[in-house]
Amino acid sequence: MSPTEFIENDPFSPIRYGYTLKKVEYSQKGPFGEITIADHDYFGRMLILDGVVQLTERDEHYYHEMLAHVPLNIHPSPKEILVIGGGDGGTLREVLKHQTVKKVTMAEIDRGVIDAAKRYLPKLATGFADSRTSVVITDGAKLVARSRSAFDVILVDCTDPIGPALSLFSDQFFSDANGALREHGIFVAQTESLHFHLDFVREVQGKLRDNFSFVDLYTAPIATYAGNWWTFSIASKSLDPRKIVPRKTAGISTRYYARDVHRNSFLAPSLRRKLLND
Amino acid sequence: MSPTEFIENDPFSPIRYGYTLKKVEYSQKGPFGEITIADHDYFGRMLILDGVVQLTERDEHYYHEMLAHVPLNIHPSPKEILVIGGGDGGTLREVLKHQTVKKVTMAEIDRGVIDAAKRYLPKLATGFADSRTSVVITDGAKLVARSRSAFDVILVDCTDPIGPALSLFSDQFFSDANGALREHGIFVAQTESLHFHLDFVREVQGKLRDNFSFVDLYTAPIATYAGNWWTFSIASKSLDPRKIVPRKTAGISTRYYARDVHRNSFLAPSLRRKLLND
Repeated sequence: MSPTEFIENDPFSPIRYGYTLKKVEYSQKGPFGEITIADHDYFGRMLILDGVVQLTERDEHYYHEMLAHVPLNIHPSPKEILVIGGGDGGTLREVLKHQTVKKVTMAEIDRGVIDAAKRYLPKLATGFADSRTSVVITDGAKLVARSRSAFDVILVDCTDPIGPALSLFSDQFFSDANGALREHGIFVAQTESLHFHLDFVREVQGKLRDNFSFVDLYTAPIATYAGNWWTFSIASKSLDPRKIVPRKTAGISTRYYARDVHRNSFLAPSLRRKLLND
Repeated sequence: MSPTEFIENDPFSPIRYGYTLKKVEYSQKGPFGEITIADHDYFGRMLILDGVVQLTERDEHYYHEMLAHVPLNIHPSPKEILVIGGGDGGTLREVLKHQTVKKVTMAEIDRGVIDAAKRYLPKLATGFADSRTSVVITDGAKLVARSRSAFDVILVDCTDPIGPALSLFSDQFFSDANGALREHGIFVAQTESLHFHLDFVREVQGKLRDNFSFVDLYTAPIATYAGNWWTFSIASKSLDPRKIVPRKTAGISTRYYARDVHRNSFLAPSLRRKLLND
């Protein structure tokens, strides 16, 4: 099979990103879009949804570790976790590293992503066989709307805010998420790039402030997401997201996340004022 | 003039970056490469050298503010500054904001970049008329080799380490830079992306450690540099780069740099160990 020139199809990016794919392992159109698995000399195996890179083996740990370990190291005792999206398994893998966790519910709308991950992304899809994992094929927004005080942490690990992911950024969803969380519950969603999607970040931060006591923003550098400087919007009922619990994280091995990285990742107060008018 | 599809020609990047240029204002081949000035709907005016984006009006302040203000806020009284490269004027503009600065020498190898900046980059080329500015058209490495205890701060604002810029990353150059600095002298060089050029960053950090007492690394998110997560290698004879001087910066207006950004920008100790083996 000859190499394929692949240009990312990202309507939100002012830069076009091009990759030379060594081999396309799998490509299938399903009800929620086209799932492609490909190999790249530098980035390793890649997951591409509807022509937009979702992860590469080379840099996925920046994203998945920061999405999972920041809230799980703020909550004093995270037991019940909800992952919305995340069918590739990367976030699930990180969440399951925490021994306090009793149950992880994954609400993934597209079964095809999970099936592709199990077959083609063995470094990510390590948590599906764990007895604490429960997969539900559903729209995460609907599951959240019917849950009351059920989760300690809700993680939104979704695609760009278009199509299926749009319902995960509505005011109604954030209100429902608050209701679905327990007393010290924490909510985190990936919210795109501070460079290219600042208006979107501001909009989400505003909606979260309408629904939660504490709202903040932290970032991670992810080479393969348009604009890099990726944001995670974090909201909580009662816990200050800048205060890490002094808890043993023995046995938890990470490549990027650490307590000092956690602290540095939160947007400097001066930038909160300048960029978020906060 | 119709829009131009421009694909960046960066041999160091595993991703190709593409831009739709609204208009090419100027393009000229000179002895040190091709200088292009173009306009982009989102990024504004751009400077492109030999097919590689050097700056855009939209995000240049992240780079220039961090290159200049970090060392100038560590040194207790920076008076004599040397800028190597930087012909676009962005670094010069930031350095001149400091009232302690008596003289800025710019050693730029390519007069064509300065001429193009003066004509097409009015937001950057603001410092050439300042009485404290002295421009020398020369190879910065040669100027440094013949200078003894002449500068408080040396800033290397160069292109990718290929061609003309290669001499600015040699062991000899770092040794000469040490000799060209005064007692509390500080040296900073842009050293590419932590994502895509980690081996290069490690190599430079190692060479700097052979020549300076304090060596460290800080980063800034720059959307239009391949790999983003851009690094600045900082070295000093006697001052710890993590200690900001509690000095008045009255009258210095910045869009990104601030004391908290300064502190957060230094690589977390855990990442120094993991990424730089330091």
